[in-house]
Amino acid sequence: MSRISDISLAPSGLDKIRWVESYMPVLSSIKRAFEAEKPLKGAVICTSVHLEAKTACLVLTLAAGGAEVYATGCNPLSTQDDIAAALCSLGFEINAVRRATPKEYTSDLSNTLSHMPHLILDDGGDFTELLHGECSSFAKRLIGGTEETTTGVNRLRARHASGLLRFPMVLVNDAMCKHLFDNRYGTGQSTLNAIMQLTNLTIASRTVVVAGYGWCGRGVSMRARGMGARVIITEIDPVKAIEAVMDGFEVMTMDEAAGIGDIFITVTGCKDVITSRHMEKMRDGVLLANSGHFDVEISKPDLEALSSEVFYRKPSITGYRMKDGRVLNLLAEGRLVNLAGGNGHPAEIMDMSFALQAHALKYLWQHGGDLPAGLYPVPDETDRFVAMLKLDSSGIRIDSLTPEQHDYYYSHM
Amino acid sequence: MSRISDISLAPSGLDKIRWVESYMPVLSSIKRAFEAEKPLKGAVICTSVHLEAKTACLVLTLAAGGAEVYATGCNPLSTQDDIAAALCSLGFEINAVRRATPKEYTSDLSNTLSHMPHLILDDGGDFTELLHGECSSFAKRLIGGTEETTTGVNRLRARHASGLLRFPMVLVNDAMCKHLFDNRYGTGQSTLNAIMQLTNLTIASRTVVVAGYGWCGRGVSMRARGMGARVIITEIDPVKAIEAVMDGFEVMTMDEAAGIGDIFITVTGCKDVITSRHMEKMRDGVLLANSGHFDVEISKPDLEALSSEVFYRKPSITGYRMKDGRVLNLLAEGRLVNLAGGNGHPAEIMDMSFALQAHALKYLWQHGGDLPAGLYPVPDETDRFVAMLKLDSSGIRIDSLTPEQHDYYYSHM
Amino acid sequence: MSRISDISLAPSGLDKIRWVESYMPVLSSIKRAFEAEKPLKGAVICTSVHLEAKTACLVLTLAAGGAEVYATGCNPLSTQDDIAAALCSLGFEINAVRRATPKEYTSDLSNTLSHMPHLILDDGGDFTELLHGECSSFAKRLIGGTEETTTGVNRLRARHASGLLRFPMVLVNDAMCKHLFDNRYGTGQSTLNAIMQLTNLTIASRTVVVAGYGWCGRGVSMRARGMGARVIITEIDPVKAIEAVMDGFEVMTMDEAAGIGDIFITVTGCKDVITSRHMEKMRDGVLLANSGHFDVEISKPDLEALSSEVFYRKPSITGYRMKDGRVLNLLAEGRLVNLAGGNGHPAEIMDMSFALQAHALKYLWQHGGDLPAGLYPVPDETDRFVAMLKLDSSGIRIDSLTPEQHDYYYSHM
Amino acid sequence: MSRISDISLAPSGLDKIRWVESYMPVLSSIKRAFEAEKPLKGAVICTSVHLEAKTACLVLTLAAGGAEVYATGCNPLSTQDDIAAALCSLGFEINAVRRATPKEYTSDLSNTLSHMPHLILDDGGDFTELLHGECSSFAKRLIGGTEETTTGVNRLRARHASGLLRFPMVLVNDAMCKHLFDNRYGTGQSTLNAIMQLTNLTIASRTVVVAGYGWCGRGVSMRARGMGARVIITEIDPVKAIEAVMDGFEVMTMDEAAGIGDIFITVTGCKDVITSRHMEKMRDGVLLANSGHFDVEISKPDLEALSSEVFYRKPSITGYRMKDGRVLNLLAEGRLVNLAGGNGHPAEIMDMSFALQAHALKYLWQHGGDLPAGLYPVPDETDRFVAMLKLDSSGIRIDSLTPEQHDYYYSHM
Repeated sequence: MSRISDISLAPSGLDKIRWVESYMPVLSSIKRAFEAEKPLKGAVICTSVHLEAKTACLVLTLAAGGAEVYATGCNPLSTQDDIAAALCSLGFEINAVRRATPKEYTSDLSNTLSHMPHLILDDGGDFTELLHGECSSFAKRLIGGTEETTTGVNRLRARHASGLLRFPMVLVNDAMCKHLFDNRYGTGQSTLNAIMQLTNLTIASRTVVVAGYGWCGRGVSMRARGMGARVIITEIDPVKAIEAVMDGFEVMTMDEAAGIGDIFITVTGCKDVITSRHMEKMRDGVLLANSGHFDVEISKPDLEALSSEVFYRKPSITGYRMKDGRVLNLLAEGRLVNLAGGNGHPAEIMDMSFALQAHALKYLWQHGGDLPAGLYPVPDETDRFVAMLKLDSSGIRIDSLTPEQHDYYYSHM
Repeated sequence: MSRISDISLAPSGLDKIRWVESYMPVLSSIKRAFEAEKPLKGAVICTSVHLEAKTACLVLTLAAGGAEVYATGCNPLSTQDDIAAALCSLGFEINAVRRATPKEYTSDLSNTLSHMPHLILDDGGDFTELLHGECSSFAKRLIGGTEETTTGVNRLRARHASGLLRFPMVLVNDAMCKHLFDNRYGTGQSTLNAIMQLTNLTIASRTVVVAGYGWCGRGVSMRARGMGARVIITEIDPVKAIEAVMDGFEVMTMDEAAGIGDIFITVTGCKDVITSRHMEKMRDGVLLANSGHFDVEISKPDLEALSSEVFYRKPSITGYRMKDGRVLNLLAEGRLVNLAGGNGHPAEIMDMSFALQAHALKYLWQHGGDLPAGLYPVPDETDRFVAMLKLDSSGIRIDSLTPEQHDYYYSHM
Repeated sequence: MSRISDISLAPSGLDKIRWVESYMPVLSSIKRAFEAEKPLKGAVICTSVHLEAKTACLVLTLAAGGAEVYATGCNPLSTQDDIAAALCSLGFEINAVRRATPKEYTSDLSNTLSHMPHLILDDGGDFTELLHGECSSFAKRLIGGTEETTTGVNRLRARHASGLLRFPMVLVNDAMCKHLFDNRYGTGQSTLNAIMQLTNLTIASRTVVVAGYGWCGRGVSMRARGMGARVIITEIDPVKAIEAVMDGFEVMTMDEAAGIGDIFITVTGCKDVITSRHMEKMRDGVLLANSGHFDVEISKPDLEALSSEVFYRKPSITGYRMKDGRVLNLLAEGRLVNLAGGNGHPAEIMDMSFALQAHALKYLWQHGGDLPAGLYPVPDETDRFVAMLKLDSSGIRIDSLTPEQHDYYYSHM
Repeated sequence: MSRISDISLAPSGLDKIRWVESYMPVLSSIKRAFEAEKPLKGAVICTSVHLEAKTACLVLTLAAGGAEVYATGCNPLSTQDDIAAALCSLGFEINAVRRATPKEYTSDLSNTLSHMPHLILDDGGDFTELLHGECSSFAKRLIGGTEETTTGVNRLRARHASGLLRFPMVLVNDAMCKHLFDNRYGTGQSTLNAIMQLTNLTIASRTVVVAGYGWCGRGVSMRARGMGARVIITEIDPVKAIEAVMDGFEVMTMDEAAGIGDIFITVTGCKDVITSRHMEKMRDGVLLANSGHFDVEISKPDLEALSSEVFYRKPSITGYRMKDGRVLNLLAEGRLVNLAGGNGHPAEIMDMSFALQAHALKYLWQHGGDLPAGLYPVPDETDRFVAMLKLDSSGIRIDSLTPEQHDYYYSHM
């Protein structure tokens, strides 16, 4: 039985799903193939991923492939209640409510897992965590799963390094067609869009401090500059720091940047990136936003400890008045601003990620029984297959090597 | 007596006003000066400008200067009802309701003008039109006014050229601190932001066709490229066309661009920029958006004539299904997408425009009685004064000429 | 009788002329028309403009139009001796030698003027200066002339304001097709190219300080950023300063920038932009370059006064060793680095400027006798004509207004 | 005994070396350490790398470390004779002459190798080839070597895959501080600079077709756009093709691009990228340039076969007149335009590459005896060490993880 907010929201959700479907040509072409071939016939799949319209298209694709799908979210603030309702109205069991309490959130996840999945699709690692702990009894027939995010992959790596991982997981995040596009172009656009939409302030003329120059940070910096900002990068890796410098950005420590920035965006995957000692130097009116997976990059305890008043500014913007009168504005409660305060990734970005997901789940269903516990990359040919579908859907043709060129290129002698 | 939608929306409007006030430092510093000096004491001022939070700050600034202010909107789709309510709750008479019919809209304007203004602030020229026609009796004590937009300025020029203009109008639009910033950076960011927010599609990988390479078009192109688009420009002026080419954009006719583009954005100030013969060539799923003043740039009659179905897609997106099955998506009913489908210009942009407005109205009140009917520029020193306030508020210092440099620069001999 | 460096250089010059001719389609089409119509028949024209291959094409175009042309340079460091030789070999009298002393330079100019021109083409104002002073006797049959640069225009304005200008001058510099393209895209590319070529250092990772955000400064900043630099602007005009900020650049005083920059580029048209007090703060190894007309923007006397040693670094780079050991490197002796240290503007840029020149000289020859002394703009239709030729030569078509659009656009009522 | 062009060129070479030394802070700091520690004492090192000023600094650094160094070039067109002379004058034996015939070139390489090196530094793989073939007797005491380029690495991979590689080679090219910077930012800037310098044409307004979107292609595209070009990418890898699209570039086949481009730049590492069937579609006046290692990317035999005339245009530009009258211009005879037609990579780029080289050679000297034949990466810590030296030399500080952050980041639980 589903646990959702309000079934009457279904029509709005269905409209949204139809819209994004028009702009997910890769997943749509896979869905058509799945409908014909039913490659997932018999599989029970549980998904824990930000529950919004694009996810719904993935759920529908998996179902078209013959799977029995149970969906929940992966963040209490990113669930869109009308999408949950729409999926319900289409006959799926959904457990996901926007703004669920931590306890409700965990209960939604374990209720979903109680269907004893053969396959899981995880985003951030909460499913995996539960299946190794309090929900381990639901893992009885589990073949394996896929992980969507850098954060989840980092958690998996740590678990595997400790010898504790009990099933095979495919690192969809690490596929080219995922992290090159989702982390960079997806997070880049959606983060900037969310900040502009929530604040209605200009990016041009502002100094944007981006913490982290991984794929997400590269995307955010590129788009912040594209909207006219002066961009400063903070990093802990000297090679990435030099790369940022060569890309034309200023690089400095957060201690140095704290007093200069107007907008701070954290995308490090680490915690305590912005703490009291930075907040004390910040200018009146700064904006603080996080696009990393967890809401620990900007220290909310520190913000609260320093404040004489915490007050409502605009939807999804909280003002923290410092004792000296300065106001620091926290967006989306420090949760990933592009999801909790925005619309999430654009449809075409998730189109590629979810095409990889669909293929990885199909692969696991067909081969997973043979795989030992461990971490598996998405095969290169899947990456190329998805990229080729994407090019085709855009009407773009590319060159291919002649046999002579192939010989030359691979032998050179 | 006010005509607004719902007074209970006032608290939301007041929150919004407080927010934008924090980010309008130039207007705020003028407001503080006006409170001390009351330079508008005795003046009745009527304003017809997109009624949103930034406008409210201007209304409050004029009132702080001693004026009696009556406000209405300038576009039936851009009025924000909570701002109208907020101004009402502060004691102003407001006549403006979102989605007013054309008849109601005109009636709101004439009710506002019935207070017999000394000064008007016009945006697009509807006030001016009425005061030369059916509301001419309300112009009895009119000293003059200001015009905010390119469209309004063009209408004023035509009227003045025909010898029909009856009072002095200051062309605020033509001031450097207005058109350089508002038209370019304001329209640029707000148009892109509105399109991303309404559609949640990527700009990167799409071909954006921008019709018009005036200041608005330059801003829209710059930001579309900044978000990763391939940008094509259409123009009628060969000098602007070459400029676009040198800026790295492709230039072609709309007939050529129609079959290539994914997103079309019109910012020409003209009508019938996109018509049936272009629509017939367009690809399935294209987005059509206008950021010019009137909703005539994309021909809605043509869209309707070509369609077998007109249907709801998402909020502010209408689908037009062509007889061959292609769907063309019109944003915000072809009205200016950044206002009707978005939040309008960012606060800091309007900060400069409205600072000019406040100064121009003060000037008219002090000198307007002596000015013959005609068109007047904002004096250069006002531009420089506003720019200097803006630099100061950003903590930026600039150089100044030494006496020797001054002599060299201006004599060179 | 010509005064040039070495006639044996002619073949090299002729090769260069043939090359640039292939890339000056606008001037070539005018040359073809001139050959047919001979609109300059009977005119004696003297030109003082950087003597390089593009100029040679202009000289040939004017001659094709029937004029008797005498050419000299306008800067002792920018003359290319092989071009002078090539023109000589084609039968022109040329007075120009690279690295002429100031005295020789002036003598070359007055020898050229001694042919009693009907028309002059001036670049920077030295011809005009001479014709109002020691060469005034050569102005007997002078009808008027054209001025190519901002510097020359400023000098003309000052002279005209003092009531001293004795003949009509057409301000070619102020035409759209000149300053929009030459000053911005021409100076932008050629300055960056010259600096990269002379130094072979990366622009990426460096902080480039651009003094002045006029058209030249905009171009230089845009290209410096395009090559990956962090760019800082210094300005004296607050409106331009804000524009630079909105374009994403940092703005500060030269005092603040002096200690931060790696490369300094002056394009102000003023003197003493970089002086001792800035040099004292500069980092070891900085590069100092000027792209303004005169070599007074970076104070060479100050550089020398501060130095313990002045030494050769590379061709066109002089090292100034400060007393504390730091070395400041001056490019091209502080003369315009893109000409004295580079190849000057790209062919296509001069194509447009010189097309305007050819048309303006034709206009003066046909109408100049009637014009009183004063400053004259290039007519808008000439700008549009040249822009249209340029579009045609690039195979680009643009839109034109329908009669209905024309009416709407110009009346709007 | 050296074979060089002209010892009297030494002073010019020494000036150049002193210049680049000032801008190679990383290598300079390693040189100071080497002077103190002599880590290469006893080693005979042969280098085959483009012989220009930066290489000379590497040779001096290795010598400072105690090695006996013999240098030759790696491309008959990239040797700078004054640098060869300068190194000679400092006591090194050099075998390298600009424009050597293929036979002389090979002889220079084998004469260099005849010193029976312990270590080689190879660039492109010619040393490696010789040591596996006709010079195999010189490999008697060879410990191993390093390879600088993508091309060389590809050749090594092919050789190793065939089981034919006889000694350990460190793939310096694959280090982050090499390919991220050299291939991208180095090739990017130097290619654009060389094209601008050789042609003096605008990049803005031109369509630049870049074949290949690897690191070199990314750099070239980024800088071509930065100078104002419209950029088209051709690729054979669908993932890279999509990446180019998301970066805002157009992607198409070379067949489609051939008729559109103005400038073609090949950076694929493959052969026959541009052949007759493309040349037949090209526009009059196009520029053809290669920045890949070998001069086989643009088919010169095809160019010649199609031409009615081959003629000199400018230094390093050859005109090929097609039978229909169109002229295609080949830059630098199709050899890497940034070296054969330009100054090679900027000093700071080679600073990082050569710092890696110095460290890799030191590592081989200290550990190479133990290494079996095979391909070895540069260790991550060397990459980070070099990056950190670079940041230090630029005065940039970065953040580091606190112990709590370290635990969180690496465990996350």
